[in-house]
Amino acid sequence: MSDAPRKVVLAYSGGLDTSIILKWLQTEYGCEVVTFTADLGQGEELEPARKKAEMLGIAPENIYIEDLREEFVRDFVFPMFRANAVYEGLYLLGTSIARPLISKRLIEIAAETGADAVAHGATGKGNDQVRFELAAYALNPDIKVIAPWREWDLTSRTRLLDFAEQHQIPIAKDKRGEAPFSVDANLLHTSSEGKVLEDPAQDAPDYVYQRTTNPEDAPDTPEYVEIGFEKGDPVSINGQAMSPAEILTKLNELGGKHGIGRLDLVEGRFVGMKSRGIYETPGGTVLLEAHRGIEQITLDRGAAHLKDELMPRYAELIYNGFWFSPEREMLQALIDRSQEHVTGTVRLKLYKGLARTVGRWSEHSLYSEAHVTFEDDAGAYDQKDAAGFIKLNALRLRLLADRKRRMT
Amino acid sequence: MSDAPRKVVLAYSGGLDTSIILKWLQTEYGCEVVTFTADLGQGEELEPARKKAEMLGIAPENIYIEDLREEFVRDFVFPMFRANAVYEGLYLLGTSIARPLISKRLIEIAAETGADAVAHGATGKGNDQVRFELAAYALNPDIKVIAPWREWDLTSRTRLLDFAEQHQIPIAKDKRGEAPFSVDANLLHTSSEGKVLEDPAQDAPDYVYQRTTNPEDAPDTPEYVEIGFEKGDPVSINGQAMSPAEILTKLNELGGKHGIGRLDLVEGRFVGMKSRGIYETPGGTVLLEAHRGIEQITLDRGAAHLKDELMPRYAELIYNGFWFSPEREMLQALIDRSQEHVTGTVRLKLYKGLARTVGRWSEHSLYSEAHVTFEDDAGAYDQKDAAGFIKLNALRLRLLADRKRRMT
Amino acid sequence: MSDAPRKVVLAYSGGLDTSIILKWLQTEYGCEVVTFTADLGQGEELEPARKKAEMLGIAPENIYIEDLREEFVRDFVFPMFRANAVYEGLYLLGTSIARPLISKRLIEIAAETGADAVAHGATGKGNDQVRFELAAYALNPDIKVIAPWREWDLTSRTRLLDFAEQHQIPIAKDKRGEAPFSVDANLLHTSSEGKVLEDPAQDAPDYVYQRTTNPEDAPDTPEYVEIGFEKGDPVSINGQAMSPAEILTKLNELGGKHGIGRLDLVEGRFVGMKSRGIYETPGGTVLLEAHRGIEQITLDRGAAHLKDELMPRYAELIYNGFWFSPEREMLQALIDRSQEHVTGTVRLKLYKGLARTVGRWSEHSLYSEAHVTFEDDAGAYDQKDAAGFIKLNALRLRLLADRKRRMT
Amino acid sequence: MSDAPRKVVLAYSGGLDTSIILKWLQTEYGCEVVTFTADLGQGEELEPARKKAEMLGIAPENIYIEDLREEFVRDFVFPMFRANAVYEGLYLLGTSIARPLISKRLIEIAAETGADAVAHGATGKGNDQVRFELAAYALNPDIKVIAPWREWDLTSRTRLLDFAEQHQIPIAKDKRGEAPFSVDANLLHTSSEGKVLEDPAQDAPDYVYQRTTNPEDAPDTPEYVEIGFEKGDPVSINGQAMSPAEILTKLNELGGKHGIGRLDLVEGRFVGMKSRGIYETPGGTVLLEAHRGIEQITLDRGAAHLKDELMPRYAELIYNGFWFSPEREMLQALIDRSQEHVTGTVRLKLYKGLARTVGRWSEHSLYSEAHVTFEDDAGAYDQKDAAGFIKLNALRLRLLADRKRRMT
Repeated sequence: MSDAPRKVVLAYSGGLDTSIILKWLQTEYGCEVVTFTADLGQGEELEPARKKAEMLGIAPENIYIEDLREEFVRDFVFPMFRANAVYEGLYLLGTSIARPLISKRLIEIAAETGADAVAHGATGKGNDQVRFELAAYALNPDIKVIAPWREWDLTSRTRLLDFAEQHQIPIAKDKRGEAPFSVDANLLHTSSEGKVLEDPAQDAPDYVYQRTTNPEDAPDTPEYVEIGFEKGDPVSINGQAMSPAEILTKLNELGGKHGIGRLDLVEGRFVGMKSRGIYETPGGTVLLEAHRGIEQITLDRGAAHLKDELMPRYAELIYNGFWFSPEREMLQALIDRSQEHVTGTVRLKLYKGLARTVGRWSEHSLYSEAHVTFEDDAGAYDQKDAAGFIKLNALRLRLLADRKRRMT
Repeated sequence: MSDAPRKVVLAYSGGLDTSIILKWLQTEYGCEVVTFTADLGQGEELEPARKKAEMLGIAPENIYIEDLREEFVRDFVFPMFRANAVYEGLYLLGTSIARPLISKRLIEIAAETGADAVAHGATGKGNDQVRFELAAYALNPDIKVIAPWREWDLTSRTRLLDFAEQHQIPIAKDKRGEAPFSVDANLLHTSSEGKVLEDPAQDAPDYVYQRTTNPEDAPDTPEYVEIGFEKGDPVSINGQAMSPAEILTKLNELGGKHGIGRLDLVEGRFVGMKSRGIYETPGGTVLLEAHRGIEQITLDRGAAHLKDELMPRYAELIYNGFWFSPEREMLQALIDRSQEHVTGTVRLKLYKGLARTVGRWSEHSLYSEAHVTFEDDAGAYDQKDAAGFIKLNALRLRLLADRKRRMT
Repeated sequence: MSDAPRKVVLAYSGGLDTSIILKWLQTEYGCEVVTFTADLGQGEELEPARKKAEMLGIAPENIYIEDLREEFVRDFVFPMFRANAVYEGLYLLGTSIARPLISKRLIEIAAETGADAVAHGATGKGNDQVRFELAAYALNPDIKVIAPWREWDLTSRTRLLDFAEQHQIPIAKDKRGEAPFSVDANLLHTSSEGKVLEDPAQDAPDYVYQRTTNPEDAPDTPEYVEIGFEKGDPVSINGQAMSPAEILTKLNELGGKHGIGRLDLVEGRFVGMKSRGIYETPGGTVLLEAHRGIEQITLDRGAAHLKDELMPRYAELIYNGFWFSPEREMLQALIDRSQEHVTGTVRLKLYKGLARTVGRWSEHSLYSEAHVTFEDDAGAYDQKDAAGFIKLNALRLRLLADRKRRMT
Repeated sequence: MSDAPRKVVLAYSGGLDTSIILKWLQTEYGCEVVTFTADLGQGEELEPARKKAEMLGIAPENIYIEDLREEFVRDFVFPMFRANAVYEGLYLLGTSIARPLISKRLIEIAAETGADAVAHGATGKGNDQVRFELAAYALNPDIKVIAPWREWDLTSRTRLLDFAEQHQIPIAKDKRGEAPFSVDANLLHTSSEGKVLEDPAQDAPDYVYQRTTNPEDAPDTPEYVEIGFEKGDPVSINGQAMSPAEILTKLNELGGKHGIGRLDLVEGRFVGMKSRGIYETPGGTVLLEAHRGIEQITLDRGAAHLKDELMPRYAELIYNGFWFSPEREMLQALIDRSQEHVTGTVRLKLYKGLARTVGRWSEHSLYSEAHVTFEDDAGAYDQKDAAGFIKLNALRLRLLADRKRRMT
C-alpha cells in the first residue's frame, strides 16, 4: 500500500481548492486523475466543473458529473430521518450523511476506470476526512486514499495561491482574499464554520445565513402544510405526490421562507476537539417535526422508546463516518422494522422560525379515543385494572422501602 | 391491608372534585381526613382551600397548606433538566415531575398525623395515579392508597353533582357545566387534555393556551437573555442571581411573552393507551435550550453522548412514576457526576415562539480555538495524526470488506 | 368482555391440576372445552393426556395433541440464542421462551374451533401467566383469557383434591401428598422451584436435578464435540447435519452426561418479587458457549458490542412475556442482521460441568493472522498508525486534563 | 511537543525487553531515565529489577520499586467487579485494569522527578499502548509518551539481541531463543498470546496455563467456600476478614487449585484486528460468580437490569483504555450507587473448573419468602392484582393486534 497511486478518482467541485488538488496530484504523483463532480443539491452549476477539468487536462472520459439528488435523499436522508436522528440533541447531520454517498461513487468509479486511489479535499482537522475514508475503505479494502491537506506543504493561503499561479490555475477575483468562513452545502443543509465564527460567545453575523430568511423578515402570517407519509418516508406535500428530492426541495423552500432550521451549535468532533458550526436545515427541520408527528399516532410506545434510546448511537455512527458499518446497518434494520405502519398525514404550522405539528391522522393510527376518553368508554377500559397494575409495579419498591426501614 | 382506612391524608386542591372526594372519604369509610394543599406554582390562591376544608368539617390542625415552589424547582425540576430530559422526543415532563413531591409530603404528613392512608384525585385511566402511588409505596410500604375515581360509582357528571348537593358541597356556577378540557398546572407547565382535544387531527383551539402568548401576537422584536449556570443549574438571569423558583418564574414570564414552549403532542401513556395533550412550558423550553447551550462548551463529548443515550430511559422513568426508584437514583448519580463543570453563561434569542442559543462562554470551556482554527494552530494539532486515527478505525471495516469480496 | 366464555381452549398437560381446571371450566362457566397438549420436549407421553381428556368428556375433535419440538427450537430457541440471551447474567430463559409458542397455538386453535377464550394453569404469582396472556392478547386482541388460579377458591391442596374427588377426576397415588417442589420442563430446560427450594441460603438437594448428571458422577474423561453453525444457528454436531430439535436433543444428551448447565438462581420476577429457581439447561449451556465461540471469529467488533449492549433488554423482553411485541421484533431484526456470516465450526471440551471453547474455524473468519502476528506482518499493519490513533482518541482527555489543571 | 524528551520515566520490568528500551532511550535521546517497577501481583521478585537498573547506570534515586497490590485490587479491580464487567461476554479484563494504575504512577513519578516524558514497552499492535497512553494524557495533558516499539528499527529478534550485546545488556540463556508465546500477569490474571497460540482453531497447549491446575488434575472432591461482601466488595473468606489483595490472593489459590478461570478467547482489539488470548483468572472468576450471587438477593431488579445493560459499555471503556474518562467515572458513580446494600454472604461450590453459587443470605435481602411462597402467604400478595397488571401491560399489544387485523 505504500507505493504511489497510478490513477486517482478525485472528488472535484470545480472550485479553486480542488483544482489545486487536481494539479498537485498530477505533479506530486504523476498519476492520471479522474474527476467526479456530484449534484447533491448544493445549488451550483456542474458544467463549469467540466470545463475546468478539461482545461486542467482531464480527458473527457475521465470526467464524471452526476446528479445524485434522488439517490441522496431516497437512500441516505430518508433512512436517517426514519430514526429521528439528531447529533448532540440538535444537529441534523446534513454534512455527515452526504459523505458516504460521495465515497460510494468514488469507489464505483475507481472500479469502472481501473483507478487504484481516491482523493478528497477535506482537511486533517475535521470529520469529513474520516467519513470519506471510512466509507471508502468499507467499500474497497485495498483502495488508496489521498488526503492532500494532510500531506502537502501548501499550508498557507499564500502558498496555495502561488501554487495555483505557478500551474496556471485560474483564480476568481473573489478568491484572492480569504473567505470569512467555510461553507458546505447539499440538498439537506448548509453548514458554515471557521474564521468569523470561531468565537462561540459571539453571535453569528447575519450574512452567514444563506438558505433561510431571518425569522424577523419571514412572513407575518403562518402557513400550514400537510405532509403525507408512507412507511416512515414523506411521499406528498399538501396532497401532491412527489419524489424524495422534490419533497426535500419543496420543504426547503417552505422552511427557508419561514426562517426555519437555523442552528448555532458547538459540537464534539470525532477527531477530539469541539467546533462551532452554523447550520441551516429548513426542510429537514420541518421533516423531523412531521415525522415525529406521524409516529405519535402510528408507532407503538415500546417501539418508539426503543428507537429513541438507540437514536443517539445511530446519529453518532453517522456523524463519525460509520454509515457503511455492520452496526449502522443493524440499527437501520431495527429502525426500518418499526416503520411499517408509519403512514398517514401530519399538519404543521410554519411561522417565524418554528415548525409545529398541530394535527395528524392515519388509517394506521393506534390512538383510540374509545380508550382515552373522559366520557363513558363503553367498557373499553376497566379503571379497576389500574389498581393491580400499580400494585405489582410497586411491589419491588415496597420491598425496598421495607428494607430501608429495617436497616435504619 | 384490606381493612378500611382510619385516617387519610388527601391531596386537596379546594376544587369541586377533591371536595367531593373529601366528603366521600368521610361518608364511605367514616375516616378522619387530613387535607394537604400545596403551592407548586399552579397560580391559584391557597387560602380558599383552607376555608373550604374548614367548611367541610376538617379540624384546623388537619389542614396543611404549603408553599413548595422552591423545593419543587430545586430538588425535582432542576435535577431533571440536568439530564435534558424529554419524553418521546418532545414532552418536558411538567406533570410527571410534580407528582413525587406531592406524594412525598402526603407520606410525611401521614407520619406526622398518624394517618394510615393517603388519597388522590387522579382517575384510573391516567399516568398520575401511577405516579402518586408508586411514590407513596416507595416511601412507605405499608401505606394504604385510596383512589376514589377507581372505586366509587360517581361515574357521571350528574352523579357527582348530585352527591355534592346531597352533602352541601357548594358548586361554583361555572362548574355546573362541564369544562371543555381538563387542566393541570404548576410552575413548570400547564397541561390540557380531554374533551375538545380528543381528536388529534384537529387543531387545538386558541383558548386552550393559558400561559403563552400566541406567537403571532408576541412582540415583533426579539429579546436577548443571558442565563448563568453553575454545576448544571441556572443561577442567574441577565447577571442577576435568583433562587430556583425565581428563575423559573422569570423564565416563564420571558418565554410566555414570546410565545415559547407550546406543544401539541400525542403520547404513549404508561397504562397503555395513547393520549393527546397540549402543553405550555415557556420557562422550561428556554431552560432546556440554554442548558444544552452551556453543555456544548463545558461537557466532554464522551460524557455528553453517554448522557444523551441514557436520557430517554431517565425520562421514561419519571414519566412512568419511578422517581423514587433505585434506577432513577442511579441515573441521577451518573448525570450529576457529569455536571461538575457545567458552569458558564448562555445568550439566547427569544422571538415568536423560538428560543435559540446564539452565544455561550465559560471559564470551564473545553472549546479550544487553538485546536479548531482554520488558521495556523502553532502545533496544537498535528493533521498527520488523523491518518493513523482513520487507518485504525478503518481496519475492521477493511477486514469486513475483504471477507465480503472473498465470500462472493 | 365481561360476559362468560362460551368455548375455551385450555393448555392441558393431562396432569391433575389442569384436569381440575378442565372440569372447573365446565362447571363454573358451563362452557365447551377444547384441550391442547403440546410436546415441547418435556419428556412425557402425550397419549395419556388424550385418554384423560376423553374421560373428562372432551369430544375427540376438541382434543389437540401436537409435537411442536421442531417449531419450538427453530422459531423460538434458535432466534433467542442468536442474541446470546441470558436474563440477569445467568438464566437461559428456558421457560420464558416456551410460553409464546403455546399461546400462539392456543389462539390458532381458538380461531379454528370458534372458541372465544383460552385458559392456562399458571398461578397469579408467577411470570408465566403474564407470558401466556401477553402473547394471547398480542395475537387476538378480543380473546378472553381465563386464569383459574387467580379466580377460583380452590386455594389449598385439600380443596383441590376435594374438588377432584367430587368430580371423579382420578388422582394418582403419588399426587395425594404434595410434591416437594414444582417443575417445568421442555426441550431447552428443566426448572424447579418452590417448597424445599424456598430458602435461598440452603443448597438445593440433589434429587431436584433431573436432567444432568452430578458433575462429581460425570465421566472422568473430557469429551470433545464440534458444532457447525450456519448464519448463527447450529446445523451439525461432529460433522453430522441435524434438524434443530435433533441438535438440541443431542446437545442435551452430551451436556447432561457431563453435568453441564446446572444453575441455582434467585431472580427478579416481572410481577415484582424475587424467587429462587434451580435450572438445568445442558444443551443450551453448550450452545451458548459454542455460539459465542463462532461469533468470536465471524462477528465484527462493532456488531458484537452492539448486540451485547442490547442483549439484556432483549432477554428482559422475553422473560417478561413480550415475545410478540414490536420492540422484540425490532431487536430480532437487528440481531438477525448480524448473523449473516456467523458460519463455521466450534470445538468444545465438555468435562465435569463445564463446556469450554477450545478451537474455532470458518471460511467467514475475520481473524487475520497477518495483522495480529508477532512475526513480520509483511506490511499488513503499520504500527506508526497507532500513534495518530491514540493522539486523536486522547485529544478530548487532554483538553479535560488541561481544564482540570486550569480550574484548580 | 515535537522536541526530544529530557527525562523519561520508564515502566520497567527488569526483563530483557525493557532493559533494551532503557538503553535505547539513553542512546537515542540522550535523556535521563527513571525506572518504575511495580508489584501488581505478577509473581516476580522486584529486587533483581533494581540491580539490573543500577547496572544499566540508573541512579538510585531514579529507581522506583513499589508494591501496588492493595491499591490495585482496592481501587481498580474491586470497583470493576461491582459492575460484573466482562468484555465480549467472557473476558474479565485482567490486563486492561492494570494499565491505568501503572500510568497513574508513571505520571506521578514524572511530577516528582521533574520528568517530561514516560515510556512503555507495549507494541504498536496491541491495546496496551492505548491504555497506557490514554491514561497518561488524561492525567497530564502535556506529557510526552515514548513507545519505542512504534519508533525504533529493532524490528526483529536478531536486531534486538544485537543491540543488547552491543550495549552490554546481559541476556539470560533462555531468552536467546524466542518464547513460544507472550505473557502478561498480575494479581488478577495471566494472559498468554502470540506465536503458538496464533491459530484460533488449534487447542492451546497445556504448558500455556500457569496459574490454574488442569481441571482433570484438580481435586476429585468439591470444596465449598463462603465469601462475605460489604457494599459490593468482598471482605472475608470463610468468615475471616482480609484486605483486598489478601482476598484476591486467597481466591486465586482456591480457584487455581480447582482449575477455575481458564478462558480461550478470540477478541476484538480496539486497534481493529482480532486476536486470540489464553486467560487464567481463577480468583476473579470465583469473585464474579459470588458477586452475582450476593446481588441476586440484595439488588433490586430495576437496579440490576440497568447495571446489566450498561455493563458492556463500561467493560468496553476499560478494555479500550478509557479508565480515566468522564464517561467511565459517570458509569462508576451509577454502579457504586447501586451497591449500598450489596452486603451478605455467598456460598460457592468449587469443583473441576467450575465455581457455582449454591447459597446466599443477607440481612439486606430483598427476597421475601412471604411473597413468593407456594404456601399460604397470609395476604402478602393478592393474586387478583396480576389480572390488572397484565391487562394494562397488554393494552398496547391489543391495540397493535387490532390495527393489524384492520389493515389486512
